[in-house]
Amino acid sequence: MKIDEMIQKMYQEDFDALVIVKPENVAYISGFKPSSPSMVLLKDEPILFVSKLDLEEAHEQSHITVDEFKSLDETKKSLEKSIKGGNLGVENSLTVQTYRKLGDNFQIQLSDLVERFRMLKSKAEIKKIEGSINIAENALEDVAFSGTENEVAAQLEYNMRVAGSIRPAFETIIASGSRSSLPHATTSFNNLETPVVMDWGAMYENYASDMSRTIIQSEKEEEIFEIVLEAQEKAIDTIKPGIKASYVDKVARSVIEDYGYGEYFIHSTGHGVGLEVHERPSLSVKEERKLEKGMVITVEPGIYIEGEFGVRIEDMVLIKNRAEVLTKAKKIICL
Amino acid sequence: MKIDEMIQKMYQEDFDALVIVKPENVAYISGFKPSSPSMVLLKDEPILFVSKLDLEEAHEQSHITVDEFKSLDETKKSLEKSIKGGNLGVENSLTVQTYRKLGDNFQIQLSDLVERFRMLKSKAEIKKIEGSINIAENALEDVAFSGTENEVAAQLEYNMRVAGSIRPAFETIIASGSRSSLPHATTSFNNLETPVVMDWGAMYENYASDMSRTIIQSEKEEEIFEIVLEAQEKAIDTIKPGIKASYVDKVARSVIEDYGYGEYFIHSTGHGVGLEVHERPSLSVKEERKLEKGMVITVEPGIYIEGEFGVRIEDMVLIKNRAEVLTKAKKIICL
Repeated sequence: MKIDEMIQKMYQEDFDALVIVKPENVAYISGFKPSSPSMVLLKDEPILFVSKLDLEEAHEQSHITVDEFKSLDETKKSLEKSIKGGNLGVENSLTVQTYRKLGDNFQIQLSDLVERFRMLKSKAEIKKIEGSINIAENALEDVAFSGTENEVAAQLEYNMRVAGSIRPAFETIIASGSRSSLPHATTSFNNLETPVVMDWGAMYENYASDMSRTIIQSEKEEEIFEIVLEAQEKAIDTIKPGIKASYVDKVARSVIEDYGYGEYFIHSTGHGVGLEVHERPSLSVKEERKLEKGMVITVEPGIYIEGEFGVRIEDMVLIKNRAEVLTKAKKIICL
Repeated sequence: MKIDEMIQKMYQEDFDALVIVKPENVAYISGFKPSSPSMVLLKDEPILFVSKLDLEEAHEQSHITVDEFKSLDETKKSLEKSIKGGNLGVENSLTVQTYRKLGDNFQIQLSDLVERFRMLKSKAEIKKIEGSINIAENALEDVAFSGTENEVAAQLEYNMRVAGSIRPAFETIIASGSRSSLPHATTSFNNLETPVVMDWGAMYENYASDMSRTIIQSEKEEEIFEIVLEAQEKAIDTIKPGIKASYVDKVARSVIEDYGYGEYFIHSTGHGVGLEVHERPSLSVKEERKLEKGMVITVEPGIYIEGEFGVRIEDMVLIKNRAEVLTKAKKIICL
């Protein structure tokens, strides 16, 4: 854990302490993912406050001191004792009520310190992410591509569950026929038609995976598939430390634009994955960040022709000197 | 939909508009559950702003006007035009950044108006909740109670998925042997031992269900099971409109205390269920609310003896003149 480094950085940025409540950030700092409201006070002696429900497991798993969370007022008192009206950093996702309550006694500023650290994965984290990817990929084995969209999703999720995925990383998408033109269509009781856009991921040891494949049949579908694949390959070839994340998006988008389908690529090219399925950086036109070694991102261009069909291909990539594609599953799946 | 009633109440409470971003609240007002950040401006002519990704489906499903969400600044401008520096209501879960940004031009107060409406379910909502409960109950059929905890969870979730549950309502708990003493233990690769605490639920047409059963074997387990069952039955018998929610908790707790296990009942007796698996009211000692007709709640006492084992029994209940137990599955499950 980089907790000392994080505390040092916190002081450099002129905070006296950080209040961390987002479960993924709590997990990142303490090693314990809480199941009910909890809080880390990040300061010289960081403390994890958890509810009674989580106390036994938190004691087993946390790397930092654990105490029972009784009330915000009590936590605030313990905070006041240790830092006395200084600069307090909070997360953007803190509730308005807690934000206001803390604001009575502290100078509050937003801090995304934990999210910035989380962008660069440690070896231990990469191992967990690879485990999560393997579970998602292996789930494809033996799936019968027949029956309803729900039935296909059920098989993928069953396979992931048996292999240790605690839940789907997000709502599995099995969108077939004309529904494939809806990028976030999840599933239905419709019988499977082609093409079939499938987007799924595991949650393993608190780390997410995220992948998409599209099963195609007609010539038109194949034509679009080839364009999306070319966009993905060129985008991946572009990846190296130091380039702007937005440039990867630009490369993928240019390929699709050159074939005349620019207006049908209606989402960004990718996003970071880790404790959350969507985290920094974003591979989008607006992203100012540069790629760095240790980032894990998706590369997932797509073309969605409203009322007709859609195609998306998505892999996860670890940034080293170049891109290392972590998702090994073949791109073409036959019915 | 009670949208006119809600707008009327909003004006009575001296708000000129509400900014709604919580997906379940957006779904409640518009009929469309967004998959990416979106916002409802609740005012005379309510508008739903969604991202480009959701636009096609939102147009199909929303009961209110739909527009594309471009940026917060643009939405703020449209808001300023229609309400001019008045009192703006926001949810507690609004991000700190948005809260601050809106605060430049408006008087902001927290409003839980939507959550208060959501507590009382319409007939259409109850039907969806019953559908969600049926899916969870029926998932028990044909489950083989052998192998690992993960394998049992996988079967329950597979059955729910095929029946139309878009995802588990929460992380399924299959906690067996001594792990059953951890109320939120989810699952592991451990082979099944007794007792087995199982807590699972479906998410169907955006509505959650939530139920628990415990498989017991030894005499000591049976003794504890009987106490928990008595606590649950007495709590359910107490339920009627007009009594305090905390009183139901008190009744369940008294039974368990009388048998000398009070310190082992370490959570509240229940909670509301609807678009979220945990919503108001809470059946806890701190809850000030009274029960009302149309609420749907869980009743789920439990006893957790650290290091030994735990037992929990949970049903969902609709409040009419008395409690109508919606969960029909039998309490005793044999291995």
